[in-house]
Amino acid sequence: MRDVYIIGAGMTDFGEIWNMSLRDLFVEAAIKAINDAGVDRIESMYVGAMSPGLFVGQEHIASLLSDYLGADGIPSTHVESACASGGLAVRQAYFEIASGASEIVLAGGVEKMNDGSDVTYALASASDQEYEAFHGVTFPGLYAMIARAHMHQYGTTREQLADVAVKNHENGLKNPNAQFRMEITPEAVMNSTMVADPLRLLDCSPVTDGAAAVIVCSEEVARKSGKAIIKIRASAQATDHIALHSRQNIASLPAVNKAAEIVFKDSGIKPEDLDLIEVHDCFTIAELVVMEELGLYQRGKSGPAVQNGETRIGGKIPINTSGGLKSKGHPVGATGVAQIIEVVEQLRGNAGERQVEGARLGLAQNMGGSGGSCVLHIMEGMS
Amino acid sequence: MRDVYIIGAGMTDFGEIWNMSLRDLFVEAAIKAINDAGVDRIESMYVGAMSPGLFVGQEHIASLLSDYLGADGIPSTHVESACASGGLAVRQAYFEIASGASEIVLAGGVEKMNDGSDVTYALASASDQEYEAFHGVTFPGLYAMIARAHMHQYGTTREQLADVAVKNHENGLKNPNAQFRMEITPEAVMNSTMVADPLRLLDCSPVTDGAAAVIVCSEEVARKSGKAIIKIRASAQATDHIALHSRQNIASLPAVNKAAEIVFKDSGIKPEDLDLIEVHDCFTIAELVVMEELGLYQRGKSGPAVQNGETRIGGKIPINTSGGLKSKGHPVGATGVAQIIEVVEQLRGNAGERQVEGARLGLAQNMGGSGGSCVLHIMEGMS
Repeated sequence: MRDVYIIGAGMTDFGEIWNMSLRDLFVEAAIKAINDAGVDRIESMYVGAMSPGLFVGQEHIASLLSDYLGADGIPSTHVESACASGGLAVRQAYFEIASGASEIVLAGGVEKMNDGSDVTYALASASDQEYEAFHGVTFPGLYAMIARAHMHQYGTTREQLADVAVKNHENGLKNPNAQFRMEITPEAVMNSTMVADPLRLLDCSPVTDGAAAVIVCSEEVARKSGKAIIKIRASAQATDHIALHSRQNIASLPAVNKAAEIVFKDSGIKPEDLDLIEVHDCFTIAELVVMEELGLYQRGKSGPAVQNGETRIGGKIPINTSGGLKSKGHPVGATGVAQIIEVVEQLRGNAGERQVEGARLGLAQNMGGSGGSCVLHIMEGMS
Repeated sequence: MRDVYIIGAGMTDFGEIWNMSLRDLFVEAAIKAINDAGVDRIESMYVGAMSPGLFVGQEHIASLLSDYLGADGIPSTHVESACASGGLAVRQAYFEIASGASEIVLAGGVEKMNDGSDVTYALASASDQEYEAFHGVTFPGLYAMIARAHMHQYGTTREQLADVAVKNHENGLKNPNAQFRMEITPEAVMNSTMVADPLRLLDCSPVTDGAAAVIVCSEEVARKSGKAIIKIRASAQATDHIALHSRQNIASLPAVNKAAEIVFKDSGIKPEDLDLIEVHDCFTIAELVVMEELGLYQRGKSGPAVQNGETRIGGKIPINTSGGLKSKGHPVGATGVAQIIEVVEQLRGNAGERQVEGARLGLAQNMGGSGGSCVLHIMEGMS
């Protein structure tokens, strides 16, 4: 396999973007990424999106978007794995470059969620429709069960969940693209509207419109670009039982663990070597469980670590410097790409007020549903 | 790039399959393909499906299906390009093997269409929602415009369209998996219910449930299998303006032409070298235009060729020996994989009553929407 690099990144603002359609959003991000990379062509593209069919009645979006981008008939493919769709778009571009079939590929993600008439129904289609959604459970309910089990088994506290949200908003305040650029207090989280006990409104990532894109390329193109280049050290993907009830322990996310084993083995990097991590905090509890599944902390130790500030910028291992899904927003198909962009900007030293000093190695963890799928990328900044 | 092979194939019956769900269908096809290949593991899988979200309210299907298959957490990715989704699943598997990342990958496609409450709405999401579907045009309407333009510009006749359907039913009668195993007459086509002038009911492919899967692998695995092996000589993909009104000539399908140029160049094979072709006859007119875009016939010569029997089994270039989408059925996400399976079975000499004698080279042409995307594979039977 050939080595694979990222030389360009671009994203829209994340938020309720009423004046832009699905295609407007994607093309803005794509053009920013192309300009950032300084390339004059792309050979193919991949688009991550969870459910443009249910959100805005549009399938066949890869052709729609390459057309609107003016990309002259190039191969364009939509990939989907619920909220892990964006990470998978980058992974497919990675394979295409690694195989030698192409030199420059655009990988992007997009979701237009606020136009949908029933966002909860659309999102619930990422759970098992026949065994879960049909019976009325929604994602806050599924993650609430994970949270309850984690609290019961490992002593995680309500306050520790709040601390995840507080820390992510602290970071998001420094991210100009974030949906909710405001600080919040633990009290605000704990007094916010109950959604699914123990999860309250400020434990949940929001409904968001947005798009993000990166330019993925071969070593030769990367070297010639004259840009700060980022190497993808490894890509890993795993799945798990899609229905929560099929898991042996619902306080765990085995797909994350399985993918982590592969990504660390393939890259030769250890969790403690990483300078920053973007994790899929669709709900506060997800961030804690993922920290454990990645091997950063033992079971039950993630909550105290957040409480002690170990995952803040300047802490032992900064997590979600972008603000995470919680503060930055969660346009589901775009999220995985936006996570990779945050790592790229950090490794380039371009993260402004939220820069992790001397960042050289970063990981992006993107997840679908209640952990039915996971995709991980480890990236390294090259001098 | 490494060479890539197919060593196993399996599909369900195509039809109105009320007693099987989306997952039942896919797993039946997958297990048949695995057993046919004689492998004891797959390393990852790709699933082509157009809109499980709109048809049955289920996204995140790649995880759902690997889980139901008992495939133990392997990477599993859903790819979509409307009715070209199946062909793209095989193409992504092709890249993964070509890159050296994996040795054995399953590529399948599935669609459960008859359970949906509004199949026409779901299918129309493959056109441009904002510029076409919203204004009321459906796919029969779009292809009717292509047909009218083709008749006007090149003299294609109503009878020639009927001859496509008659020939495909003649072949489908010999395919045990086909949805409509019955002969039809030109008169039956021309007297069938008008759908969108000039297209009548028997010009249109049906609404179908079904699944299909193949096992894609490296040369080493293929050689060790002891099976009749099929080499993928080339894979090509192209897109076009998704909305029909954006095309310079609506009697053409430029994505097919663009992909054809690549697939013939990359394989070093000429159109006249092919022993059989599966084409995407979602409507009878599509088969005629595709024949021209592939370079088999000049503009306006495809209709007379069908009329003269040149594309029947035993003719100059047999097209849609499987029965095509028209007679075999068109479960949209499964179609591209089923086309590849027909070519594989022909190259293996396993096509029974519909066998093309001495078939060595075959092409599968899969298309999305009204030609907004196209994926082509040329395969060769190896002795």
